[in-house]
Amino acid sequence: MVVGWFGRENRFRALLEAQGHDIVELSSPAAAVDCEALVIATSQAQIEGTVEALEPHIRRGQIVIHTSIGLGVQVLDPVEVHGALAMAIAHVGADRWVVTTSDELAQGIAEVLLFESGQVSLAKTDAERVELAPKIAYAQMVRQLARAAHRDLKELLDEQAVPSEQEQGEFLAPRFEASDIYAAFQSITDPGFRKAFVEAARRVGELEHNMELEMWGLQEELR
Amino acid sequence: MVVGWFGRENRFRALLEAQGHDIVELSSPAAAVDCEALVIATSQAQIEGTVEALEPHIRRGQIVIHTSIGLGVQVLDPVEVHGALAMAIAHVGADRWVVTTSDELAQGIAEVLLFESGQVSLAKTDAERVELAPKIAYAQMVRQLARAAHRDLKELLDEQAVPSEQEQGEFLAPRFEASDIYAAFQSITDPGFRKAFVEAARRVGELEHNMELEMWGLQEELR
Repeated sequence: MVVGWFGRENRFRALLEAQGHDIVELSSPAAAVDCEALVIATSQAQIEGTVEALEPHIRRGQIVIHTSIGLGVQVLDPVEVHGALAMAIAHVGADRWVVTTSDELAQGIAEVLLFESGQVSLAKTDAERVELAPKIAYAQMVRQLARAAHRDLKELLDEQAVPSEQEQGEFLAPRFEASDIYAAFQSITDPGFRKAFVEAARRVGELEHNMELEMWGLQEELR
Repeated sequence: MVVGWFGRENRFRALLEAQGHDIVELSSPAAAVDCEALVIATSQAQIEGTVEALEPHIRRGQIVIHTSIGLGVQVLDPVEVHGALAMAIAHVGADRWVVTTSDELAQGIAEVLLFESGQVSLAKTDAERVELAPKIAYAQMVRQLARAAHRDLKELLDEQAVPSEQEQGEFLAPRFEASDIYAAFQSITDPGFRKAFVEAARRVGELEHNMELEMWGLQEELR
């Protein structure tokens, strides 16, 4: 199948290529008429505009996919009214994909497409996608912070002192008690690290319903 | 050896017990005279006071250990002048311990003690310990936040959808680009999650020297 592509490279593109589809970078929306499927892989903010530009060139039965987790399939309504099969297919992690479509036919096609590459579809509503997007972004960011903190610690402890199979943070001892967290904070001089430390403590306190730790974080933030 | 114990249970105590030492909870400092070794495992803030209370009861050759990473061996000076062997022995993670002592004899004893249980000693100065403590506390907290975020995501995606061997965050796709982080943020309503999200983004921006992302975080924090 000839697939017209708008926007960034991503895992969905790699998957289509591996299935033998013919991916064509589209520079103009008018070129969409020659494609059986169109994929919009721009940043989330650009998707609506791309759909608008595509709309006059869509024909019945064309597949139109966007790959943003933060938007539902509704953003594709302008092309769906012209008879396009609208799908929002976003990669979450590993072999899992969140799939939202305009109707059952589109859902079936999306699932077959993913299944053919051994991937797992999770059907979610537009509202569920909106809730998922910040949770994924946050999980990715704190994972990155946790890895950076662990690398930093490894450097201080000498690289070879920390077993590499324990790189994911498993290496660390159980968490300090609150009073030792406060004590440890006193020796930080770097302002960026102070901010990060205090907010991490506040959020840990909030999640654990440890009011004292949460309030400590809030108060330190206000200094 | 009879070991007098002040303060909390910890891994060091488990290690001494496994070696067959006789651990005695001390309710009064005067009872210290009957012990060959004393361990102060209170919170960091209480260590100085405990050392003061112990000081009149210390005799030459007694081992005095504290287990706080945030303090050096210097806090044990009042007992060391009476001839005690002073050691600061703190567990960092896995089989790694940070060891700081008053002299070479004390260092040797500490290392043998740990080695006997298959543990690894890392000799650090007082100044190095002070730098290590907040880095360890922070790494522990962001690890906890990363795990909580991942659990939260798993619940939204249905527990069984996320392979359990990928629980440590490895499951997640590569991080969103900055513009999609901003877009995802818009749908968060919970104030605590908004704060945590914005600060995580700011810190990621800071660590990556991505000024735009860092500034976005700072600006959102001020709203």
